[in-house]
Amino acid sequence: MSTDPFVVVGADAAGLSAASKCRRAAPDREVIVFEKGQWISYAYCGMPYFIEGRVDRMADLLSLLPAEADERGIDLRRGHEVTGVDPEAKTVRVESDDETFDQPYSDLLVATGGRATTGSFDVRGVDGAFTLHSMDAAAAIDAYIADPDEYDFGRVDDTPVDRERVAYNAELAAPETAAIVGGGYVGVEMAEALVGRGLEVHLFQRSEHVLRPFGEAVGERVETELADKGVTVHTETPVDALVGDDRIEAVAFDGAELAVDLAVVGVGIEPNTELLAETGVDLGTGGALRTDDYGRTNLDDVYAAGDCATARHTVTGEETWLPLGLTANRAGRAIGSTVAGEPTPVGDIAGTAVVKAFDQECGRVGLVSEAEATAAGFDPVSATITAGSRSGYYPGAAETDVTLVADRETERLLGGSIVGPDRAAVRIDTLSTALDAGMTVGEVERLDLAYAPPFSPVWDPILVAAKVLNGQLDD
Amino acid sequence: MSTDPFVVVGADAAGLSAASKCRRAAPDREVIVFEKGQWISYAYCGMPYFIEGRVDRMADLLSLLPAEADERGIDLRRGHEVTGVDPEAKTVRVESDDETFDQPYSDLLVATGGRATTGSFDVRGVDGAFTLHSMDAAAAIDAYIADPDEYDFGRVDDTPVDRERVAYNAELAAPETAAIVGGGYVGVEMAEALVGRGLEVHLFQRSEHVLRPFGEAVGERVETELADKGVTVHTETPVDALVGDDRIEAVAFDGAELAVDLAVVGVGIEPNTELLAETGVDLGTGGALRTDDYGRTNLDDVYAAGDCATARHTVTGEETWLPLGLTANRAGRAIGSTVAGEPTPVGDIAGTAVVKAFDQECGRVGLVSEAEATAAGFDPVSATITAGSRSGYYPGAAETDVTLVADRETERLLGGSIVGPDRAAVRIDTLSTALDAGMTVGEVERLDLAYAPPFSPVWDPILVAAKVLNGQLDD
Repeated sequence: MSTDPFVVVGADAAGLSAASKCRRAAPDREVIVFEKGQWISYAYCGMPYFIEGRVDRMADLLSLLPAEADERGIDLRRGHEVTGVDPEAKTVRVESDDETFDQPYSDLLVATGGRATTGSFDVRGVDGAFTLHSMDAAAAIDAYIADPDEYDFGRVDDTPVDRERVAYNAELAAPETAAIVGGGYVGVEMAEALVGRGLEVHLFQRSEHVLRPFGEAVGERVETELADKGVTVHTETPVDALVGDDRIEAVAFDGAELAVDLAVVGVGIEPNTELLAETGVDLGTGGALRTDDYGRTNLDDVYAAGDCATARHTVTGEETWLPLGLTANRAGRAIGSTVAGEPTPVGDIAGTAVVKAFDQECGRVGLVSEAEATAAGFDPVSATITAGSRSGYYPGAAETDVTLVADRETERLLGGSIVGPDRAAVRIDTLSTALDAGMTVGEVERLDLAYAPPFSPVWDPILVAAKVLNGQLDD
Repeated sequence: MSTDPFVVVGADAAGLSAASKCRRAAPDREVIVFEKGQWISYAYCGMPYFIEGRVDRMADLLSLLPAEADERGIDLRRGHEVTGVDPEAKTVRVESDDETFDQPYSDLLVATGGRATTGSFDVRGVDGAFTLHSMDAAAAIDAYIADPDEYDFGRVDDTPVDRERVAYNAELAAPETAAIVGGGYVGVEMAEALVGRGLEVHLFQRSEHVLRPFGEAVGERVETELADKGVTVHTETPVDALVGDDRIEAVAFDGAELAVDLAVVGVGIEPNTELLAETGVDLGTGGALRTDDYGRTNLDDVYAAGDCATARHTVTGEETWLPLGLTANRAGRAIGSTVAGEPTPVGDIAGTAVVKAFDQECGRVGLVSEAEATAAGFDPVSATITAGSRSGYYPGAAETDVTLVADRETERLLGGSIVGPDRAAVRIDTLSTALDAGMTVGEVERLDLAYAPPFSPVWDPILVAAKVLNGQLDD
């Protein structure tokens, strides 16, 4: 084996999981992680909760500190941007404020993540207009919402935040009305966060329902919930433009304008693959770096993981691109093992996702709509049911909606969604497990699921849905 | 096919599920259900919550009313006790206040349920001493706890309760100190109920830990929770006797006596099989009626289901006896289909169970201890971990204990338990599904389980446990 180090580009979930695992499994192995910025291993998913104020200190969102990376024997170099890869020479070009050099590698992991897309919206240089895909942006939004001079800088202590940007936003007049452009995870979570901060909130969704990956039943329920909690939801309403030169003044849509003083754009993310653009690397679904079962790209000894990489879908067996937290952590860890000498598959992903929308808990896994299943080559049949979350007589029993999708020919479960206020989200794991096992709807119907009045009715909502869908399959 | 009716003995979960399903699937089929008492289809599991006062009216615990059985075309005959079966003649002997007759059947379902065992304790005729295995007993306890003449008879309106017994208990002096004999489900739920009613509560458990079927990790956590909530837990403390002739005065244990004025005995249940005692029926595990994959006994056209019948265990493939609600409902429904002409297996059971102990949610499935696994012929290895229920920075994150047991040779998951205050119980369904699929620990570790800060950390507690156990398997 080459004595050159294992080089990792990007110090977030995938990169640091790989580095840590490799060091644990092969303590003699040299591992260098280059991170172009100052942040490492931060909880992207926690940013809305920081802005909401549920999380007091941004430092709490840091899951690994540089000192801890040191302790693990990882050679972490922040402020070092990798600007090129030479797969023939097996070197990366590294640039920092002080130097530029070529670093040889034996194995290379590209874990460059993704970035927020902004569509046609340019938020740069416009006060009060933001995307939410970095800790600096989260801190800036939080400071912007605060009344001038009332911002508590303690919120961002012990982090490498851009304090200048925070200070600038803290001095601007506090907003009263917000537009959120895009009703995905970030949009829905931000709606809750901004209502929690006392703003009047408008949420704009281009398509028919918010939370598109969760399907219609979840989307409808969440729209009702958002409305109940005071959010004005504009579905089937593309925003045409953000209005305002120096500061956001309005959003334009349907030929009208709505005056706002805060706009958050969350219309999607895309993979950061530019680093390998001129190497002959294969790109796959979503423009992400195409990887095999072990996270390898088509370039020798070059791996990719996390939001910049493809994965294989549990249900379709096809390549997919689903940038989610567990996927990144798991693939990173597997690659760390593989590089350390123990080949470990990164594992398939079922697309399991959960999100909280005020008091509604939402979950989805696999293929959640007939359209999605048809596109994947199945002959789908689906059912949506509403059932109680507990025995009817037990206080707190709440309506839980379950959608299941199956293939008519094989009767195999293809996916499903769950929404409800009472322990609904974690129930999705049952479906994820059933998908992983390739269960038929009949097998799901016969699962021995838990029953006790405080937690579930005799027939769990999932069993009820399976029964109904099984009845349709028999027709 | 014989034109004689499908006869069901017992009008609770299994019996009425079978009758209802048969009538739906074969509307021309005559179905007669004999019930010796007046209660039908009541929620046994809801009784502690009625006594606690969370459920206002006992009538809320009735899941099917006689009039609804009528609407389904079921010939329901309450107050009719089946006292004998002649499997040669294919008749049952039926006795009511008015008549005794032989009823021919084409198919017979014995769904006679179970009864509380009392061990050496005789609670009959002793005021303030009860077992909890009937609605009449639950109503009597509830009335006994009330201050004299302050009992609200509206609590039992619209039910066939023994009002004389209720009235008698309502007039007795209200108790202040309770002993619960037996720390199983009923014991733990009753402890919570009685604390909720303001009593000082002592719980006695013969063995090392309460909730034995849930294993040590759950037992320990629940004992701490009970103590925190004011219950005095006496583990490894068999009660020698109930003291008192007309009214309970004390419980005797360890050569001492503790003065109490309420005693609830919950030391176990046993199957009601006497009806078939002289028919040559095979008995199996736990003395229950031995049944095959379709719920058939060894007697022609005689089925058994529910708390009086055996089932097959998902993990061991062996006969087992686990009297639980879903098992009864599911077996009844399957037998109803089979009798209607569509042969339907009753399904294996994994022994999934959940219980609430104040703020702790407990779940178990499969084989939860190495001892249990060894007894079943496996070479077990197990791990218990503690992990957060949410991202550490999200308020409400709580310690969740997961125990997993696997077979060393095949690495197959054999069972597990979960305990914690935050959505712990329903997570057991993930393990039940994995057991049903026969997954290895490695397969569980690679499951794509849900992650979002309010509901789960990146690595779900189940994944953490699988990772640790997998590490042990590699050793």
